[in-house]
Amino acid sequence: MPRIIDHEQRRREIAAIVENILYEHGAEALTIRDVAERAGCSTTIVSHYFRTKLEMLVFTNQAARGRGEELLATAVKTQASILKTMNLLLPTNNAMKMAWHTCVAFWGMTPQDARVTAEWYEGISEAHSLFEDLVRIGQQTGEVDPSLKTEQAAYMLQVIINGISSLWAQDRQHWTAAKQQLLLREMLESAGFCNKV
Amino acid sequence: MPRIIDHEQRRREIAAIVENILYEHGAEALTIRDVAERAGCSTTIVSHYFRTKLEMLVFTNQAARGRGEELLATAVKTQASILKTMNLLLPTNNAMKMAWHTCVAFWGMTPQDARVTAEWYEGISEAHSLFEDLVRIGQQTGEVDPSLKTEQAAYMLQVIINGISSLWAQDRQHWTAAKQQLLLREMLESAGFCNKV
Repeated sequence: MPRIIDHEQRRREIAAIVENILYEHGAEALTIRDVAERAGCSTTIVSHYFRTKLEMLVFTNQAARGRGEELLATAVKTQASILKTMNLLLPTNNAMKMAWHTCVAFWGMTPQDARVTAEWYEGISEAHSLFEDLVRIGQQTGEVDPSLKTEQAAYMLQVIINGISSLWAQDRQHWTAAKQQLLLREMLESAGFCNKV
Repeated sequence: MPRIIDHEQRRREIAAIVENILYEHGAEALTIRDVAERAGCSTTIVSHYFRTKLEMLVFTNQAARGRGEELLATAVKTQASILKTMNLLLPTNNAMKMAWHTCVAFWGMTPQDARVTAEWYEGISEAHSLFEDLVRIGQQTGEVDPSLKTEQAAYMLQVIINGISSLWAQDRQHWTAAKQQLLLREMLESAGFCNKV
């Protein structure tokens, strides 16, 4: 790993390595030693950036969900349609596939560690708040059924996006982009999210 | 662990131990040594029942999803309503909470191992086929919108149940039984699954 002044940048590089290990071998096989080997440095240097394996996993999850949150924040800023935004969030390209894989792996961690549950809570809350913004905009533009309650509608969007991703996670050959997008559209339409689309 | 003649029964006992470890420490902390210690036997004996950690995890996942499949099969046999059946599948009691936790942890494993993807595929396919049966019955009884296509409707049910469980997985305090059931009902109604309920 080249010497880089930015501490945060190094942490991001390590997180990318962790994502690859999670993808290739699963969380049950992750070791600091593997990470160090792939980063081309010693375990002591890795420990300088992350004191524990859990701290490393939490940061990796934050980076992964951050990609989705960025898409959502841009959609809110540009008042993009819900259908278009939800399509961007689906695991249909490599970046989102990796992000979903990492997030799903993190969902499977133990609920008995407060650092895990704190990260789950932060992730789901930040996404929820962005989805609520999206629903409000959709109700202003007429795309979303005005009788839907914002909070409940945002949860529905989270159920739909997480649910489709869970199907993809278990049968990646079947769930092509086209099939994901069709199911998404049908579910959004029937739930009142595509009134004008 | 007491001496039991039934090989399958021993495997189930070990799977229950694995489920507890996944819940308490996560997949990343699972070792055969831990399993043996909790089972009160040697690692050699555990290896007699499961040659590898992966084989043990696959069997544990089969046992976990088996609980959901049993509920679904009974619902099909008794022609139960979709709303009632979906309510039984939600993580609202200890048995289903453990089953969902195990399945979600298994979703996070590596897609690069053919034994993992084979188990994912078997799990999602068996559930899908049972959900299709449930949709057909619902269309006969008039509970389900007759214009819904069986295959697509079954996928929608899988998205809804997996999606709600994913919200619970990340914020277990918030997602009480009542909140899960309300969201489920609203989503089923809007998608045309509760026409007569």
